[in-house]
Amino acid sequence: MVQRRKRLLDVDKILDGALTVIDKYGRLTMTELAAQLGTSASSVYHHLSGRAAIVELLRERVVAAAMEVPPLDGTDWVDQIARWMHSYRAALAQHPNLIPLLTEHTMTAGGVLRGYDRVAQLLRGAGVDAREVLLWISAFDSYALGAALDLAAPDDVWRRSVDDLPALDEALSAAPRGRRRADESFAIGLRALLVGLRERLSGGA
Amino acid sequence: MVQRRKRLLDVDKILDGALTVIDKYGRLTMTELAAQLGTSASSVYHHLSGRAAIVELLRERVVAAAMEVPPLDGTDWVDQIARWMHSYRAALAQHPNLIPLLTEHTMTAGGVLRGYDRVAQLLRGAGVDAREVLLWISAFDSYALGAALDLAAPDDVWRRSVDDLPALDEALSAAPRGRRRADESFAIGLRALLVGLRERLSGGA
Repeated sequence: MVQRRKRLLDVDKILDGALTVIDKYGRLTMTELAAQLGTSASSVYHHLSGRAAIVELLRERVVAAAMEVPPLDGTDWVDQIARWMHSYRAALAQHPNLIPLLTEHTMTAGGVLRGYDRVAQLLRGAGVDAREVLLWISAFDSYALGAALDLAAPDDVWRRSVDDLPALDEALSAAPRGRRRADESFAIGLRALLVGLRERLSGGA
Repeated sequence: MVQRRKRLLDVDKILDGALTVIDKYGRLTMTELAAQLGTSASSVYHHLSGRAAIVELLRERVVAAAMEVPPLDGTDWVDQIARWMHSYRAALAQHPNLIPLLTEHTMTAGGVLRGYDRVAQLLRGAGVDAREVLLWISAFDSYALGAALDLAAPDDVWRRSVDDLPALDEALSAAPRGRRRADESFAIGLRALLVGLRERLSGGA
């Protein structure tokens, strides 16, 4: 029992260290992780098979743990997708540097797959063709990933220019800035995606 | 003149080296860039003020150069946005590791700003409120960034599970795989975004 507790504690410590390295350096190497933990790479390998295993555990810890999985409680599927998307973006935005690592690995984490299973069930129940369920999930996924990167962007995404760019200048003056721009933009695009999906289901698009 | 030609050549070499470092390591440090170029960090600083300047020049080279800027030739704005988005995603997908670097810096590159000015003009001309132009641009931007990461993802984004996840398993069996999944998913989501925007313009959403 003591051995097992120690081991669990170490995996947690490795994941803490991995997140620190990713947040700080924008990538994850076993060498930097070992340095961060004050240990050797071989000690890390003693607990976890490597980088891919660490990324999967971080997917579970950062994304799955914070994501609001659709409850399939009979409430409107559009609201359920919207809530899932808001929580997904917020979870990803905590560690934007983790995002490219998440997309470069096949998802195997059980908690994450269970969340997608719920979303698939919800879309299928809403009338989405079996062949299109994964296409819509990928589209929503892409939007959440990109919006999380956008949320981590500087307050001014575009610098107002000295050149003659009147349409961009007008748009920059009229729009909200910083976090409000990111939030309103995410909401407006998500609503559009859902309107488009509804129109597709009604045979319109 | 000789001096100037040499200098231009060096900036190009620095950008080549920076892209190699980013593709290889998933980040850009001046130390690794200098090592890649077989020179010192101070030699790099002699030509370019630093990391942010390099990222802006890469934004210009990788994104602006490959992006199809809306020609504002009177053809349907929906088609123009769709073509812009397809070319934007393709440009970003060449160097997925560059994406987080692009989003963490304020855009100042002239060629890139001019492209956004065209998109702003197109949306304004289509009837989008001045206050919402940048919100829609951000939403499209997020979708292109996320879809470019998705395009660089492994053939199997989700591993079929041994657990009881029937809806996800059905979706995985029925959907196209690999590049086709990524392309069809991008297209279906982009169409939905544009349907949603059109509905918003007609006062429906």
